[in-house]
Amino acid sequence: MTATSELRVNGDRLWGRLEEMARIGATPAGGVHRLALSDEDRRARDLFRTWAESLGLAVSVDGIGNVFARWDGTAGAASEDRRPLLLGSHLDSQPTGGRFDGPLGVLAALEVVETLDEHGVRMARPIEVVNWTNEEGARFPPAMMGSGVFSARFDLADALGAADPDGMTVSDAIDRIGYRGALPVGGRPIAAALELHIEQGPTLEENGCEIGVVTGVQGARWFDLTITGEEAHAGSTPMARRTDPVAALGRFLVDAYRRIGRDFAPHGRLTFGVLGAEPASRNTVPGRVTVSVDLRHPDDSTLDEMERALCEQASRACLQRGASWRLEDVWRSPPVLFAEPCTSAVEAAAESCGYTSMPLMAGAGHDSVHTNDVAPTGMIFVPCEGGISHNEAENITPAQAEAGANVLLHAALRLVEPASADMLSAPTNQPGGAA
Amino acid sequence: MTATSELRVNGDRLWGRLEEMARIGATPAGGVHRLALSDEDRRARDLFRTWAESLGLAVSVDGIGNVFARWDGTAGAASEDRRPLLLGSHLDSQPTGGRFDGPLGVLAALEVVETLDEHGVRMARPIEVVNWTNEEGARFPPAMMGSGVFSARFDLADALGAADPDGMTVSDAIDRIGYRGALPVGGRPIAAALELHIEQGPTLEENGCEIGVVTGVQGARWFDLTITGEEAHAGSTPMARRTDPVAALGRFLVDAYRRIGRDFAPHGRLTFGVLGAEPASRNTVPGRVTVSVDLRHPDDSTLDEMERALCEQASRACLQRGASWRLEDVWRSPPVLFAEPCTSAVEAAAESCGYTSMPLMAGAGHDSVHTNDVAPTGMIFVPCEGGISHNEAENITPAQAEAGANVLLHAALRLVEPASADMLSAPTNQPGGAA
Repeated sequence: MTATSELRVNGDRLWGRLEEMARIGATPAGGVHRLALSDEDRRARDLFRTWAESLGLAVSVDGIGNVFARWDGTAGAASEDRRPLLLGSHLDSQPTGGRFDGPLGVLAALEVVETLDEHGVRMARPIEVVNWTNEEGARFPPAMMGSGVFSARFDLADALGAADPDGMTVSDAIDRIGYRGALPVGGRPIAAALELHIEQGPTLEENGCEIGVVTGVQGARWFDLTITGEEAHAGSTPMARRTDPVAALGRFLVDAYRRIGRDFAPHGRLTFGVLGAEPASRNTVPGRVTVSVDLRHPDDSTLDEMERALCEQASRACLQRGASWRLEDVWRSPPVLFAEPCTSAVEAAAESCGYTSMPLMAGAGHDSVHTNDVAPTGMIFVPCEGGISHNEAENITPAQAEAGANVLLHAALRLVEPASADMLSAPTNQPGGAA
Repeated sequence: MTATSELRVNGDRLWGRLEEMARIGATPAGGVHRLALSDEDRRARDLFRTWAESLGLAVSVDGIGNVFARWDGTAGAASEDRRPLLLGSHLDSQPTGGRFDGPLGVLAALEVVETLDEHGVRMARPIEVVNWTNEEGARFPPAMMGSGVFSARFDLADALGAADPDGMTVSDAIDRIGYRGALPVGGRPIAAALELHIEQGPTLEENGCEIGVVTGVQGARWFDLTITGEEAHAGSTPMARRTDPVAALGRFLVDAYRRIGRDFAPHGRLTFGVLGAEPASRNTVPGRVTVSVDLRHPDDSTLDEMERALCEQASRACLQRGASWRLEDVWRSPPVLFAEPCTSAVEAAAESCGYTSMPLMAGAGHDSVHTNDVAPTGMIFVPCEGGISHNEAENITPAQAEAGANVLLHAALRLVEPASADMLSAPTNQPGGAA
């Protein structure tokens, strides 16, 4: 029998599953279109479930559609603490997303369990491979929905009532694809959670580093900015008589990129992902334009400054043009610091496997932000080509996927081997962790 | 019997019909939502037809849904020239349009015929009251569709194949509302055409003038501008690593308003009516933004300059940010000058009725641009409140509607009374007018 420290995942098997999963919702440009709770998401869930059940895992689904595949490989281990270790991520995608954002973490977790199982390893506690519902938030806001309800940060009824642009609610969509389970959402003790993910940024690649030890997640604030002017006929209204919200928008965009995008670099980030004008007729000066705003920074007080700058620029651009504006809060996610036992386990796992690693903050939100509310949580990053993600061109190599899965395996072993089980018996600053 | 020169329309009856028509597709803010070939448009057409038939007019519909209500009030008049005088406008509206843009011209034409008929006036030729299909172009491009096919400027098959954003074609939409008629589209001789319309701009109001003698219509060019960058994750992609098309759009908008909107004032006009980003996810830097462009000017060579400036600004804004751009032609409408017999008739009619008038160019496109291709055409403008149009707040007074209808009546009398019939017997520079 292989010594536990020598265990390695089966990289070919993992890659094969990633390729098979990527066929569901595959786009001609090599990405995936697998929006949360769509038919494609259902097929991805079914495939995951089939794989998990074929490994003998017990699959259960909760009331927001989160799927848990439990491996109870503790026979012979002496432990009364049955709190599971959660390993996983998500299977939904952006509208034109990549093949690895999410599935890598779910399928690597499955690979970890299969590797442990086939080598007869006994663990101090169960492992649950989880697929969280609607991490992307691209179809139904907010993002990281399933994990947010699990951690009680979001209200279940609110989440079920969220609607997509066609007016279909999460509740109806879950029923439509048959993924409303009997398991209560959250409310049960979790020992710890680990998530493997692609970095979705260029830092690891630029530093020639194989593994990112994620120390936390930067804060994010989402807003909808509406600029209101006055509808007018495009042909007969002289320029000087217009209150054109598009003119105010142009000035606002230029100033916002300068005062926020540039002045808060390199850590601050500013994105306008959704743009629209109403009534959206080409021969009418719009009465109203809307733009979504996404601000990110690792530091909460700096986010306050960025938000103030945002309002200042909107105010200035509109004042000059007689337009008015309104900023609506959509979502606020404060910066998160992950638990030390988890970051240490990831760092040590990378070292023990012989991979180069570096600490870094995650730029994107992840389900781990939410699990961190209820249990010590850690994340592992692997590089992705050119740092490109949320893009059909998103790419990683089989060796990168394998390295990430090996670090997930060994971080898990460090957290739940009998020798380290004590590490998780008394969570420190994690509310609800040992509830 | 009233002398012809003393004839006046019934302003109360006209206003009553305008109010009744405005109830179809009425919006809470006092405007109308009556997109071309929608259920609301069908109801508006049905109402017009009912009114026309109750006056004894013969209603016929052509293959693009244009509706003609013919008054053959020529009994006793000695004329072998049966070419009709067309009076009318359109009943469709912008998505959030006003109550008078279009209906005023159709219902005033009906009022003119009713006035002539009830006073027993005999004309040298028939009058047809016309409701043109899809003047606005808000649902199906291009605008002024029905008159464009009538004048052979547009191909019938192309027009029938145009689709709305939901993919429904004009052909299907016409059938759905039951307005595909047996009459061939165009191809028949027309003596002349007159259209009463609200100005949709502030010039008449600012000059305290009751009637605008429209000498022509400024040229318009429509484009779709697409700026392409690179999709990227909003959280993890540093600002310096982005090719963000929204940043290029902001710069482009500011420069375009300066170099086109301001430098070509007061006659030049620049409108961005439709804005969008793809993939339209708030946590993804868009890969692509699109914006519609509407350029207007009374002079064609100046439009060339404006188009060149547009390309220069797009090029400059994109070059600085590594983005690329493409400008697609959607529609080009050269400036139009109306026929002298018609403008003279309108001017003389205003004077004979005692209204103040001034010549002006129309800022907006109108069906008259197309009828001018096949027959001498003229337009009459009345002021609208604050120059506001393509807006639910669009407004005119009953007295303004009545004045416009009286000028329409007397311009029609001047064009088709036996004494003036010669004026139209030999169209000069109008192709197809006497074909």
